Amino acid sequence: MADLILRQDGDGIARLVLNSPGNFNALSAEMIAALTGALRGIAEDDAVRVVVLAANGRAFCAGHDLRQMQAARSDADGGRAAFADLFDSCARMMQMIPALPQPVIAEVQGIATAAGCQLVASCDLAVAAEGARFGVNGVNIGLFCSTPMVALTRAIPPKTAFEMLVTGDFVDAARALQLGLVNRVAPADALTRTAMAMAAAIAAKLPAAIRLGKRAFHDQLRLGLADAYETAGAAMCQNILLPDTAEGMTAFLEKRPPSWS
Amino acid sequence: MADLILRQDGDGIARLVLNSPGNFNALSAEMIAALTGALRGIAEDDAVRVVVLAANGRAFCAGHDLRQMQAARSDADGGRAAFADLFDSCARMMQMIPALPQPVIAEVQGIATAAGCQLVASCDLAVAAEGARFGVNGVNIGLFCSTPMVALTRAIPPKTAFEMLVTGDFVDAARALQLGLVNRVAPADALTRTAMAMAAAIAAKLPAAIRLGKRAFHDQLRLGLADAYETAGAAMCQNILLPDTAEGMTAFLEKRPPSWS
Amino acid sequence: MADLILRQDGDGIARLVLNSPGNFNALSAEMIAALTGALRGIAEDDAVRVVVLAANGRAFCAGHDLRQMQAARSDADGGRAAFADLFDSCARMMQMIPALPQPVIAEVQGIATAAGCQLVASCDLAVAAEGARFGVNGVNIGLFCSTPMVALTRAIPPKTAFEMLVTGDFVDAARALQLGLVNRVAPADALTRTAMAMAAAIAAKLPAAIRLGKRAFHDQLRLGLADAYETAGAAMCQNILLPDTAEGMTAFLEKRPPSWS
Repeated sequence: MADLILRQDGDGIARLVLNSPGNFNALSAEMIAALTGALRGIAEDDAVRVVVLAANGRAFCAGHDLRQMQAARSDADGGRAAFADLFDSCARMMQMIPALPQPVIAEVQGIATAAGCQLVASCDLAVAAEGARFGVNGVNIGLFCSTPMVALTRAIPPKTAFEMLVTGDFVDAARALQLGLVNRVAPADALTRTAMAMAAAIAAKLPAAIRLGKRAFHDQLRLGLADAYETAGAAMCQNILLPDTAEGMTAFLEKRPPSWS
Repeated sequence: MADLILRQDGDGIARLVLNSPGNFNALSAEMIAALTGALRGIAEDDAVRVVVLAANGRAFCAGHDLRQMQAARSDADGGRAAFADLFDSCARMMQMIPALPQPVIAEVQGIATAAGCQLVASCDLAVAAEGARFGVNGVNIGLFCSTPMVALTRAIPPKTAFEMLVTGDFVDAARALQLGLVNRVAPADALTRTAMAMAAAIAAKLPAAIRLGKRAFHDQLRLGLADAYETAGAAMCQNILLPDTAEGMTAFLEKRPPSWS
Repeated sequence: MADLILRQDGDGIARLVLNSPGNFNALSAEMIAALTGALRGIAEDDAVRVVVLAANGRAFCAGHDLRQMQAARSDADGGRAAFADLFDSCARMMQMIPALPQPVIAEVQGIATAAGCQLVASCDLAVAAEGARFGVNGVNIGLFCSTPMVALTRAIPPKTAFEMLVTGDFVDAARALQLGLVNRVAPADALTRTAMAMAAAIAAKLPAAIRLGKRAFHDQLRLGLADAYETAGAAMCQNILLPDTAEGMTAFLEKRPPSWS
């Protein structure tokens, strides 16, 4: 199972690569377990400052593994327990991304469909190749993309999300940029370079500030204004009292680069 | 009252047409009652898979019927009860649209103002003619569009919604597309064709999947992430256990069209 | 301290001008106190129908006063109490803007960074000069913009906000318009004229309707649909029973301008 995900580390960047191009990096039970394990390892790895989630092959990720799912129908309960388990473990893996201390950048080529599109929407940031396409097209085979919808409706405007869900139509990279599903679009041959440059820019920041900030970002997102300010104000106070932040502010006032520990 | 709304059914599509062009399809008490009745009928009609809400005449809908409202001022209470009733019945009608089992597509020509703009914002999807214009311009006559605002602020970004509300300025179809108020813009002479094609595309999907999905869409929209995934996961499980969905998945794997009941 | 903010009134418009160009209108404790005082005065001033928040000098506002903050580190507690106080008083000032009875328009030239960007995001509306740039770049000195994030994530799509926060990158006026952070972009020499024209358009509306509407806007924004309609419906009823609104509706039906008290 180990090589379902490749991990390459360097300069504070952990690069996770979905490595099952033969089935378009389908989110099989094994791939979900591998991703869960990889994310768990990164959560506890202080050397990692930012994560790039990329994929080998012609597709970023084509969603769940339909063949594996159909096999579960021969279970005594018709697959009920297996399906519940699959969607639950997948949803838990998706929720690990915003909960991860480090920012996660999706690096998307080819197609990102159904749970593959959910994976992009779940990442904090996304860079897409010019030819990339995004869809929640389960509806075409009679399986509405209800769980992908959770991440999608938190990333793009509601009428646009609804259209993608009920029509199964794809949007291209330019439209995904306009909608806020991705942050940058790059020529195919500059995709990795663009994603890694974004990662490097983030890795150059003070890691403790990024961690505090990412956690506060998600903690305050759905709160009322007063509660959100209370949450964010506490993060701000904790951040400014870090010795490295004192140094960062002094360095700025002295017009020199900070010397961080 | 019957002909305030025309209904034409075919191929799983119910086409509702506002038919009071003389007053720009104003949402009079009678029109609200007629729309409420039409939507209630559709909610219980399993033959309907998708709804198109269109309008006869030069305008889609110009909002409430001001003449009728002014008449209520001669009531003993100055109209207080009548106004409360009107806004309440209108808000209940608007909320029937997301609650309807079937997706609803607004087909918009001319102007959609005040509660008419609210009607567009309340629909799941919208197609606009190139010349269509959208406004919440009650503020121009001293009546801030507070109830239309509920639907509008759930469809487009807050600063843009606020600008429309306090200035009364209209936005054109291209801007409405950019904001997410409409999904598609078509030349005037292709408006109905475009809306009906979108309806036909949705009607061709598995109806049970669309129904489960639409309900889950609205149920999860404002929940925290964990609760949203619980809601959506339950919908996903219910969906995948449908025999037609099993067939849809098998058909996909066998590279043939599904044979649905 | 009085001249940290200049106030000019005319035609129902209060024009507040940040007047500390030497430090790019930094939000020092004194500037926050001055803004708080100015907003409090306006809240109680029935002659004010709309507020324009502008700034003197090359920058709109460069965020907190770093020099003043660094000085607090020599306090016995290392600045802990002073920082908590600063972020709290700043957050309270920011929340006064949506709570203010009158709409507030930011008129932005040069840069709006960190808490300066938060100030723009907190305003109901914003007009930007073509060369204006927006950033939440505290991360560059090790201080993640957690409190600015509260206002920012309520104005623009989440992935875009996250990118600005973790990269510290600026967005230009055109991109700010696309994201919904500002409402209009004007050539630099037309900036004030554009903001004041928007203010004049709002000042020409019925003040009571604008006040009821603005309050309802914020009250309903984060509620579920049914609760939002209840809140908005109550505002609508209160609005329509105003004698000036009755006159506005009659005037419209009689195709003449309203004669408001």
